[in-house]
Amino acid sequence: MMYNFNAGPSALPKEVTDEAAKAIINFNGSGLSILEIGHRTPLFEEVMNEARSLVKELMDLDAHHEVLFLHGGATTQFMQIPMNLLEEDETVAIADTGVWSGKAIDEASCFGKVAIACSSKDKNYNYIPDTIEPVVGAKYFHLTTNNTIFGTQWKNIPQVNVPLVADMSSDIFSRQMDFNSFDLIYAGVQKNAGAAGATLAVINKNILGKIKRRIPPIMDYAKHIEAKSMLNTPPVFAILVSMLTLRWLKTNGGVAAMEKLNNEKSRMLYDYLDSSALFKGTVRKDDRSNMNVCFVTEDNLMEKRFLEFAKQNNIYGIKGHRLSGGFRVSLYNATPLSSVQYLIEQMKNFENSI
Amino acid sequence: MMYNFNAGPSALPKEVTDEAAKAIINFNGSGLSILEIGHRTPLFEEVMNEARSLVKELMDLDAHHEVLFLHGGATTQFMQIPMNLLEEDETVAIADTGVWSGKAIDEASCFGKVAIACSSKDKNYNYIPDTIEPVVGAKYFHLTTNNTIFGTQWKNIPQVNVPLVADMSSDIFSRQMDFNSFDLIYAGVQKNAGAAGATLAVINKNILGKIKRRIPPIMDYAKHIEAKSMLNTPPVFAILVSMLTLRWLKTNGGVAAMEKLNNEKSRMLYDYLDSSALFKGTVRKDDRSNMNVCFVTEDNLMEKRFLEFAKQNNIYGIKGHRLSGGFRVSLYNATPLSSVQYLIEQMKNFENSI
Repeated sequence: MMYNFNAGPSALPKEVTDEAAKAIINFNGSGLSILEIGHRTPLFEEVMNEARSLVKELMDLDAHHEVLFLHGGATTQFMQIPMNLLEEDETVAIADTGVWSGKAIDEASCFGKVAIACSSKDKNYNYIPDTIEPVVGAKYFHLTTNNTIFGTQWKNIPQVNVPLVADMSSDIFSRQMDFNSFDLIYAGVQKNAGAAGATLAVINKNILGKIKRRIPPIMDYAKHIEAKSMLNTPPVFAILVSMLTLRWLKTNGGVAAMEKLNNEKSRMLYDYLDSSALFKGTVRKDDRSNMNVCFVTEDNLMEKRFLEFAKQNNIYGIKGHRLSGGFRVSLYNATPLSSVQYLIEQMKNFENSI
Repeated sequence: MMYNFNAGPSALPKEVTDEAAKAIINFNGSGLSILEIGHRTPLFEEVMNEARSLVKELMDLDAHHEVLFLHGGATTQFMQIPMNLLEEDETVAIADTGVWSGKAIDEASCFGKVAIACSSKDKNYNYIPDTIEPVVGAKYFHLTTNNTIFGTQWKNIPQVNVPLVADMSSDIFSRQMDFNSFDLIYAGVQKNAGAAGATLAVINKNILGKIKRRIPPIMDYAKHIEAKSMLNTPPVFAILVSMLTLRWLKTNGGVAAMEKLNNEKSRMLYDYLDSSALFKGTVRKDDRSNMNVCFVTEDNLMEKRFLEFAKQNNIYGIKGHRLSGGFRVSLYNATPLSSVQYLIEQMKNFENSI
């Protein structure tokens, strides 16, 4: 048994991996592998339709919001969004809360102007800014709801009077929100919504069609919507895994149940960190993520020793990102409470042994 | 037992699907699913390295040519190539041999000028043009080596004195070529090189860095090369399936052995078509593809009856594309000779029964 706390790609429910493995041998009794069937067949169209419907249901989306499963990862969205929404002489306001916001800024600046609405760079991104600068005439406002690398999370989404665009790659489906208040939500699916190889986009179609730029057809959201997310050969297997993960999510109580569980898991771990003499959380308390828990020890030697100890105890994926150092424990939906209890127990054992 | 002649996604070797299914349960004895491991781990880095090395070896590439596995399908390459290679005031020469060339033309025209170097549109793309118009000052020349929908294939690649770019989505690894004579080769992997969800690109790095446009970082080939094809989270599982397919290809004699087998399979089927009173090939003989065999019957009733007959006999994926009508039988590397023999036998049975 491995205890997987990897930041992404990350732990999936056993039901999902079992079902995915079966589909590779014989999909839905067709006698064919899911890897071998045409994407424009009822066999796959049902998968795509169910995946899109489950997103609508789990997020309680209204009729203005369309669901797409796209190629390319969230990084491609950093480009595709300004390509679709931003004129060369227009400005997007972006909250700078870490590495992924930074990439969104770089890509957007290829298509228009960027205004930094707020930043927590001064303290190595260990908090969420308290206020945002109003950007006069901004075309849209972009934020990263959860910062995987630094372990911060927007607990209150800022109210803005321009379209709201959010990268939810690392906390989608982890907590309840008014998803209809967002105009564009996107997420690489490899954390809470599947395995690497597809990107989920939820788009208020009213924000499209408002720019003069000629959008390359393969990057045009309107064309993807018209083609029901099948503009070109989609990443078939990745979408199956997403569909199975969303089915599991629904069966297990949906977003409300996940939020409760995620809050409980993260509370337990933060409580222990706050009581520990060895391990210290790195993030301002109000802004602590319920998905990625970042902490450090006082010296490098302890860090190395605990990493080795963890490995010997089948704990996988807790090394921090090089930019934040120390440790990062990711507690996505598929991570059971028992794994967190096990981890805390081992941390205590280690702390008591030194 | 199903006989799968689907145009793509298409048949895979049983060894590949078996191994892929195992990897989803427990990858390389790690106790983790391939869907759950981090992409920046030795476990996955080995997969990526082996996949890239196998391409170099199987195509006998020189040191100028770099191998990338990218997100997005060949359609994304239709955009990414001119984005990287073509200035707004420059011209690309494109051979117009069907639907996919048409999409390459549409996307390229968003970035620069397009000259149609030759076209077979006059006869619904049922042949390959005999000559190409020299385009003075073209930045590069683009062709589609095999036209999946219409069943045509360039048997002789035109000699041009500008960089040569080829979409090999439906015949890569199916026949021997001087791959080093191409400056950019790309292919959605879901036919001869894996399952839907990744795109292979082979790039002569000397053609990069020659334009003034600011390339969005996620679309910049040079950045992908520098990052060893790991610029962002790659489509992990799709790359594993490609690596397994390439391993199978090497074990089974490489491209030379595949070419021999593919020529034999397609020859058998074309020979039968030429002798049949019912089925007729649609493509000019010299230009017939050894990957996609297109044919028709004289009337719609026969077409419907044979489709039904095929279904009853476990023959899958032979309906032609709506633009070419009739039937299309795809004979990619993983389709065994015995499947083709079985298909011909059933076609004969049907023909004798009417």
